Amino acid sequence: MTAGKPITCRAAIAWEAGKPLSIETVEVAPPKAGEVRIKIVATGVCHTDAYTLSGADSEGVFPVIFGHEGGGIVESVGEGVTSVQAGDHVIPLYTAECRECKFCKSGKTNLCGKVRETQGRGLMPDGTSRFTCNGKPIFHYMGCSTFSEYTVVCEVSVAKINQEAPLEKVCLLGCGITTGYGAATRTAKVQKGDSVAVFGLGGVGLSVVQGAKQAGATTIIGVDVNPKKEKLAKEMGCTLFVNSKELPAGKTIQAHLVEITDGGLDYTFDCTGNVHVMRAALEACHKGWGESIIIGVAAAGQEIATRPFQLVTGRVWRGSAFGGVKGRTELPGLVQDYLTGKIKIDEFITHNFGLDDINKAFDAMHDGDCIRAIITY
Amino acid sequence: MTAGKPITCRAAIAWEAGKPLSIETVEVAPPKAGEVRIKIVATGVCHTDAYTLSGADSEGVFPVIFGHEGGGIVESVGEGVTSVQAGDHVIPLYTAECRECKFCKSGKTNLCGKVRETQGRGLMPDGTSRFTCNGKPIFHYMGCSTFSEYTVVCEVSVAKINQEAPLEKVCLLGCGITTGYGAATRTAKVQKGDSVAVFGLGGVGLSVVQGAKQAGATTIIGVDVNPKKEKLAKEMGCTLFVNSKELPAGKTIQAHLVEITDGGLDYTFDCTGNVHVMRAALEACHKGWGESIIIGVAAAGQEIATRPFQLVTGRVWRGSAFGGVKGRTELPGLVQDYLTGKIKIDEFITHNFGLDDINKAFDAMHDGDCIRAIITY
Repeated sequence: MTAGKPITCRAAIAWEAGKPLSIETVEVAPPKAGEVRIKIVATGVCHTDAYTLSGADSEGVFPVIFGHEGGGIVESVGEGVTSVQAGDHVIPLYTAECRECKFCKSGKTNLCGKVRETQGRGLMPDGTSRFTCNGKPIFHYMGCSTFSEYTVVCEVSVAKINQEAPLEKVCLLGCGITTGYGAATRTAKVQKGDSVAVFGLGGVGLSVVQGAKQAGATTIIGVDVNPKKEKLAKEMGCTLFVNSKELPAGKTIQAHLVEITDGGLDYTFDCTGNVHVMRAALEACHKGWGESIIIGVAAAGQEIATRPFQLVTGRVWRGSAFGGVKGRTELPGLVQDYLTGKIKIDEFITHNFGLDDINKAFDAMHDGDCIRAIITY
Repeated sequence: MTAGKPITCRAAIAWEAGKPLSIETVEVAPPKAGEVRIKIVATGVCHTDAYTLSGADSEGVFPVIFGHEGGGIVESVGEGVTSVQAGDHVIPLYTAECRECKFCKSGKTNLCGKVRETQGRGLMPDGTSRFTCNGKPIFHYMGCSTFSEYTVVCEVSVAKINQEAPLEKVCLLGCGITTGYGAATRTAKVQKGDSVAVFGLGGVGLSVVQGAKQAGATTIIGVDVNPKKEKLAKEMGCTLFVNSKELPAGKTIQAHLVEITDGGLDYTFDCTGNVHVMRAALEACHKGWGESIIIGVAAAGQEIATRPFQLVTGRVWRGSAFGGVKGRTELPGLVQDYLTGKIKIDEFITHNFGLDDINKAFDAMHDGDCIRAIITY
């Protein structure tokens, strides 16, 4: 029995910004009241981990254990935890769902205010960390820290899922796939017959594509600078692939899209984090009703801009975080959708590594051919 | 009988940008097929007229007869016109409603594509003008040109209204009041209990206030730099007036509003045309669901900007033109709402002039105490 005692295990620590992760032996304290300790089985590596590691994230703190796209099994629970128990298969949530705060109760958003402030500072709600390495506290990351064999998260940050689902696959529902799929189906609420353009065909963008297809969109245009993305994009549902580096002379991508769609798209999605692409995505929307959804995370300090006329003539600019999905309530259903074949995940997994090779997973991610790399413990 | 013949009458002509209007004798040709000739009874003077007159509007053409907020009586109709006849009381529409184009049929927007292109060039759909002055053609403006005793507009640009409504009042439903009232009730769809902030308390802003009040908003904050606006703002429904020139030291207006509303507003409205105010209005919205609606027209070339994080965390940026109102279908109902006391208009009319004094109306408009000036013929 490990419950109630610290667990010694391996984890990938980022000691400082811009340096490779380092595999270390860490001590993971038992969960306090309202907390859950999880044995992580597998985790994806996401661009957001790389972004914070790079040092560009002004809120990044070090040393830290990254990782926020994991799947695991509950090892033990702290006092008062009732929604999960040891042995449950779970996905940790960087977007908590407390069901009690103003946000959760609003019925209008999946953002939850409950643990946001301490999570943003890399700490558990009591203001401390559960990780130490040689006695030195190590920060948590996004309330998840899945780059560790064991982690501690809040009960409100745990989605209990079907035990039959392979954790080394559905861990991707912890971020990228849900983010894209939900942006199409929850945030935009794409309808049958709609036209959609997706900018950036990584794991998130391709999941927007599968969400749009699932919702019945009849035109789904994938936009990317890498022609190698075309094949998988079409497999996921794209009806057209546009290489934004190969446009007719003098044409912007937005002008090109407006032209080939007779006025613009019903919905566009930015999955690049590039503020210039965000503008293009908005301006590629159809006058009168087109909506553009920002999913990508821009670098610190960068701003989006457009002429207000674009909005006054009926375009709408919105954003989406974790696909508008309420994790504890909705993620179990998305796992079921994977099991019944409605949501594709396997096709996204292009690389697999062990924890020792986690830096190779980061390298692979920066290579255009990688959609998602999985670390299995 | 004047039908079928040119009518000689008086009109205010803008011969060139930046110069006062000049009262001239003009000849108004009979309406061609699908057109309607209207005897204008009264017209409001709007900031958009002043904007184009200033020369800042890159699409402005001269010489032109301005005015787009009028009320009148049909004098005669051209071939094929069936929806109105001589004697009908009407409001000309700068936002047409053809009920046939892609936009009208979409059910998603009040923008109509039918006459947009020629209207934008100051011409009737056949590419010519109905106005001449000493034989020289004079351009139309926004498909209305209500600064003339007689004007010719398209049938799709005419809303037939209740004959009992005083045209010298309900002419304001031709632009400002409908724009604000509709932005609150149609575009934002403000609900009972919502919180709202309105930036800029001119005719449009005050109409947002009355629309929000009508919809049941319980917090309605009016923001203006002119303390004289407070009285009328409160009469129209504002629960609080904030002078944005008198904020706590070091506080932006958005930070102040977020603070006093425990997180921000459900809806904000820019009625200033100032792109910096538009940004403040967006950023004053509540995280997770707040929506900001741009109504004001910015100067040519100006751009709005914000950090994309504002949208990713759930704020929505949209715009509204003519309050999202479909003119032929909905304006008659708004006129009824005026007659039954649901919509206030009289309170907005602070100045009255004859056509000879129209330049005084422009002067008055630039004075902060004027809400709306009416020209009666």
